[in-house]
Amino acid sequence: MKSKNILLGHGSGGKLTSELIESLFFKHFDNDLLQQQGDSSVLPVDGGLISFTTDSFVVDPLFFPGGNIGKLAVAGTVNDLAVSGAKPLWLSAGFIIEEGLPYSDLEKIVVSMAREAENAGVKIVTGDTKVVDKGKCDKIFINTSGIGLLPGERRDISSGKKIKKGDKIIINGSIGDHGMTIMGKRKDLNISTDISSDCASLNKMIEKVFKVCNDVKFMRDATRGGISTVLSEIVKNKDFGINIYEEAVPVHESVKGLCEMLGFDPFYVANEGKVIIIAPARDAEKIVEVLKTTREGKEAAVIGEICDEHPGKGWITTTIGGRRIIDVLAGEQLPRIC
Amino acid sequence: MKSKNILLGHGSGGKLTSELIESLFFKHFDNDLLQQQGDSSVLPVDGGLISFTTDSFVVDPLFFPGGNIGKLAVAGTVNDLAVSGAKPLWLSAGFIIEEGLPYSDLEKIVVSMAREAENAGVKIVTGDTKVVDKGKCDKIFINTSGIGLLPGERRDISSGKKIKKGDKIIINGSIGDHGMTIMGKRKDLNISTDISSDCASLNKMIEKVFKVCNDVKFMRDATRGGISTVLSEIVKNKDFGINIYEEAVPVHESVKGLCEMLGFDPFYVANEGKVIIIAPARDAEKIVEVLKTTREGKEAAVIGEICDEHPGKGWITTTIGGRRIIDVLAGEQLPRIC
Repeated sequence: MKSKNILLGHGSGGKLTSELIESLFFKHFDNDLLQQQGDSSVLPVDGGLISFTTDSFVVDPLFFPGGNIGKLAVAGTVNDLAVSGAKPLWLSAGFIIEEGLPYSDLEKIVVSMAREAENAGVKIVTGDTKVVDKGKCDKIFINTSGIGLLPGERRDISSGKKIKKGDKIIINGSIGDHGMTIMGKRKDLNISTDISSDCASLNKMIEKVFKVCNDVKFMRDATRGGISTVLSEIVKNKDFGINIYEEAVPVHESVKGLCEMLGFDPFYVANEGKVIIIAPARDAEKIVEVLKTTREGKEAAVIGEICDEHPGKGWITTTIGGRRIIDVLAGEQLPRIC
Repeated sequence: MKSKNILLGHGSGGKLTSELIESLFFKHFDNDLLQQQGDSSVLPVDGGLISFTTDSFVVDPLFFPGGNIGKLAVAGTVNDLAVSGAKPLWLSAGFIIEEGLPYSDLEKIVVSMAREAENAGVKIVTGDTKVVDKGKCDKIFINTSGIGLLPGERRDISSGKKIKKGDKIIINGSIGDHGMTIMGKRKDLNISTDISSDCASLNKMIEKVFKVCNDVKFMRDATRGGISTVLSEIVKNKDFGINIYEEAVPVHESVKGLCEMLGFDPFYVANEGKVIIIAPARDAEKIVEVLKTTREGKEAAVIGEICDEHPGKGWITTTIGGRRIIDVLAGEQLPRIC
């Protein structure tokens, strides 16, 4: 830890977050299960396996095009379970509410949570409510933790152990929509009216991928820190590298425009309905095809592959033929994105 | 809902909290598992059962005699699992941190969590960190969710289904310590220096109870709302009543004094290391004996019994021979007690 105080960047999902996790949480909470280092922990129960995950949601504003904090809180945890290979089943919901929050806002949020849980086929089975004095939190924060059943043959998906040279890298659609929606809303930019968050539960889409490919190597949802942060984590300290083709990565024109105007790189912007899938080359096209049959995957594409050049590093071949390196997000791009 | 806005009392654990849960959460999240209405939800996994629970901790101040928010966050969730009859195994930890929190404070909290997890024999297996701008939360809030394995024969303990006339009501020690510690610290009262929170993980003590009694009828930890709130919930809409003998209920002199001075009733003050146990009369003394062999139970006592007079109501026979009714906490006694 270089800083004596906690900085916004420690919650970015990028470099400072990793440092905090390594130097504090992993150090003191040290145990074999925590060290799995996926977004979910894989736990043995009565001969079977479950995935267990937690996420707190502090997004500002609470309501935005394409969703709200409630929908996000359900979809986010469902996705963390689903990308571990698990079938999400049960969620908890912990509310921290600021005194004076309009009851109607809370109701809208709760109704969204209920609807998203139904869409995803999960149940909210336990909860907790705390209220703090006015000025001591910002309207509402929601924690959801989740449990899913993990088929044994999928247990290594979140670890990335099975990734090999030649595997293809697939994404289920355009990048940066969630982050730029929040940015547009926060800054009250009129130009961004046709941008909408991609916030969605991906578990049903992901089950379809498992139906056409029984050898999925890795999956992770690309939230805080964007796809660059996920891709760098995959390749870190490994004996393989990653090649990404910028041209192949779907980015909506409106997102691209807003990113250019504000100086953001969409590769580092948060998504809330996008998953990076790594699979054997022979299955890549089948996966893209089945993704395209779903609403959440209709813009799916193969965006790159695992290579044996530049081990430990990810490279993007840019549209104009140049190359740039893939890194984890440093500092904080936009606080309270989720 | 009578109020258009959320009030502090909605987080008290008392009457307003119940109303909010009924009118909003149960209404929209409606499902059979949520309707179990214990602090934990009992879930079927691979032929076995697990308990699943969640709690957010917003206690102010962060550090107090007998504990801190970190110890509390671990012990609180361990206890919610243990009183359901489960063996607590795994916790998640979700941090919401205010920008500018001294790193040293966070480290102290994390070290306490690690130590308490070790004491309780549980592992922190997954986590999440969010940082919000200065002024948007109050230093740090922690959510812990937990999973425990529940032996099949204990599955009805949190429901209270098995309670019968003649059963004895037992507590593992003195009431009101946690709440009055926080109160003393908050108001900076010098008189309260010998009061200390009872914050502790009770799972190992509770396992000893199961060893001497294979027919425990009910257990619940008496946190927000105090033992009165728990006792009223037990008896609500039931065909039995509860008699409590004030004289038998352990209250430390210092807590009693501070309560009298500030106008609090210790029966409604929060505890963080006390469990109400209901068991057959024949086992009551054995349970008290085994509790007394533990540090958390050394002041254990039988404090009352289940009766068939005044069904649906709990009565306290006071020290001077009068009677008063047991109710749930109305409004908010002391915000951010846990």
